[in-house]
Amino acid sequence: MVAGCLAVLREQRPRVHCITNSVAQAFTANCLLALGAVPSMTIAPEEVPDFVASADALLINLGTLDRPRRDAAMTAIEVAGEEGRPWVLDPVFVDASKGRAEFAAELARREPAVIRLNEDEFHALTGDMDGVAGIADFAVRLLSVVALTGPADMITDGTRLVTVANGHPFMGRVTAVGCASAAVVAAFLAVEPDALNAAAAAFAVMGIAGEVAGESAFGPGTFATRLIDALYDLEPGALQERAKIV
Amino acid sequence: MVAGCLAVLREQRPRVHCITNSVAQAFTANCLLALGAVPSMTIAPEEVPDFVASADALLINLGTLDRPRRDAAMTAIEVAGEEGRPWVLDPVFVDASKGRAEFAAELARREPAVIRLNEDEFHALTGDMDGVAGIADFAVRLLSVVALTGPADMITDGTRLVTVANGHPFMGRVTAVGCASAAVVAAFLAVEPDALNAAAAAFAVMGIAGEVAGESAFGPGTFATRLIDALYDLEPGALQERAKIV
Amino acid sequence: MVAGCLAVLREQRPRVHCITNSVAQAFTANCLLALGAVPSMTIAPEEVPDFVASADALLINLGTLDRPRRDAAMTAIEVAGEEGRPWVLDPVFVDASKGRAEFAAELARREPAVIRLNEDEFHALTGDMDGVAGIADFAVRLLSVVALTGPADMITDGTRLVTVANGHPFMGRVTAVGCASAAVVAAFLAVEPDALNAAAAAFAVMGIAGEVAGESAFGPGTFATRLIDALYDLEPGALQERAKIV
Repeated sequence: MVAGCLAVLREQRPRVHCITNSVAQAFTANCLLALGAVPSMTIAPEEVPDFVASADALLINLGTLDRPRRDAAMTAIEVAGEEGRPWVLDPVFVDASKGRAEFAAELARREPAVIRLNEDEFHALTGDMDGVAGIADFAVRLLSVVALTGPADMITDGTRLVTVANGHPFMGRVTAVGCASAAVVAAFLAVEPDALNAAAAAFAVMGIAGEVAGESAFGPGTFATRLIDALYDLEPGALQERAKIV
Repeated sequence: MVAGCLAVLREQRPRVHCITNSVAQAFTANCLLALGAVPSMTIAPEEVPDFVASADALLINLGTLDRPRRDAAMTAIEVAGEEGRPWVLDPVFVDASKGRAEFAAELARREPAVIRLNEDEFHALTGDMDGVAGIADFAVRLLSVVALTGPADMITDGTRLVTVANGHPFMGRVTAVGCASAAVVAAFLAVEPDALNAAAAAFAVMGIAGEVAGESAFGPGTFATRLIDALYDLEPGALQERAKIV
Repeated sequence: MVAGCLAVLREQRPRVHCITNSVAQAFTANCLLALGAVPSMTIAPEEVPDFVASADALLINLGTLDRPRRDAAMTAIEVAGEEGRPWVLDPVFVDASKGRAEFAAELARREPAVIRLNEDEFHALTGDMDGVAGIADFAVRLLSVVALTGPADMITDGTRLVTVANGHPFMGRVTAVGCASAAVVAAFLAVEPDALNAAAAAFAVMGIAGEVAGESAFGPGTFATRLIDALYDLEPGALQERAKIV
């Protein structure tokens, strides 16, 4: 499944519009380009409608959430809804700011195809729910696929549950790896209509690229460049051999 | 010619003020520094006049074209005109947004020394003109040198035509390589008064650096770091041997 | 001293909130992560108070000083004062813009734990003072530790003077190395209450990481990635052997 999705992505070269934080923009763009997708990144209110309407998928990442990014996110989601474009919500660091958590909760109600969060972010958004049942409830309530990232990523639409156990410890030591993963989910959504499969493929691809990068990295600096190399280079055989999707 | 321009650039270390998109800022700054130029990047309206007046050349790149960048671009071009600083217009992605195309057309009338665009951007700006004659007409109308980038770059002032055929396929797989090329054109304009020669030297230097980088890159990640290494390292002999300028 | 500070930093993993310029954000974040600290970077006025209050130290860098960054800086410094968080002022490029120099002078009076500047920036801020006596006067007047960066860094609280002579020439050829150094000072302030020692440790660590990186770099591109590797990898023995702190 993963290898097939990646082959389609490389052939179709979907454009992914990313409303994302200023720290993650360049690394996210480079991951998408290496994978075979085409990024665009403007948050200017006059430009967002044209860019989203002509894109194949949308990422909304809530890092460095200033007023222009809030406005851009609202406009982009509206246009994505009108044009039937799938979108991903990445509520990074909602555990560090109440205002961000409230805004994230508002956006989560607008039916993102996939919402990505780690355990702390999940708790900040949902209060006291926990465990697999909590995530599944959240997915049902939102009508979204929920991807809880961690040592193993748990992905559920409320009915089905997939775990992806690929990755490398350096992925937590390079800024924007998580942000770029959510952009890669958006890229897979552009070519795979089943959002659960798209998210699983994306996390497997990023995790495996991380494992490959880790084999030749001297530290987090070379790891980041090798991760991009690996995204470009991944072959069907390696994907099938390495994928830990259950 | 290319080697001579680069030697002067490395000796004079011109400062290039860049009004550029947030995705490209860091990579652009690193290309300029590696080459021997000094970048500055503020878009704050209170700061732009001082920074442009004390710079040796100016880049206006229209990516992530929010309101502050529009205002900064207008102010910067005005100051550049008053102070006699050469400037480069890079209307990236004008084919994706009508508002951006209109703004680009307005700026193009203010006599940039060089305007860089690819084929899609050229069509979005000029309508139905095409081919060498179309580019030459555009250059004459604007009183600018036009650099049409592609597999081979075509550079014309309406009378003379130069093509530069250096480059590497990974240059399309790393974000901001095109944006950085336009900044390198600005750096060469600071040391070479003939804008056609400055643009040709810049595209040759970037293309050759790309070729050198491609020889030791494992993928687009290592390619980006090696491109910066190569910009720092380029030697006159290698430039003369590799340059494909006709 | 340096090795001990670094060990504590790696264990405690302090969070450093960075109000910094858009060019430096990603590289700064990656240096902090490699070192063992955790960066956050929002400048949104609604978010800054929560983020600063929950951080362990604060960096204020005045690059790309637009209105939102000015407002964020003022708010952040106020919250840092209330919460007793140490903060670092990095008035980059104040020599290129009068408005920036005035704002920097205003912030300098609010008792940063450490202020970092190079010689040109020092002159722009202080007028005609010079030499060791000038720096010491400045430190006494501000009630801050002053770190004058250059081929050898001079660090003083007005009474004690420390010089750190580690580093590599490529550090001037990679954008944001100076900005990231100031962020590393903030990280050390989070674990070392003596600001003079914290600053000395930070500059020694960055300088030594630069030396290590220089040994395997092919140019400024690979140097930047290897510097991050080295920050992750530095061992107590290497620190003690290489540190040139007098």
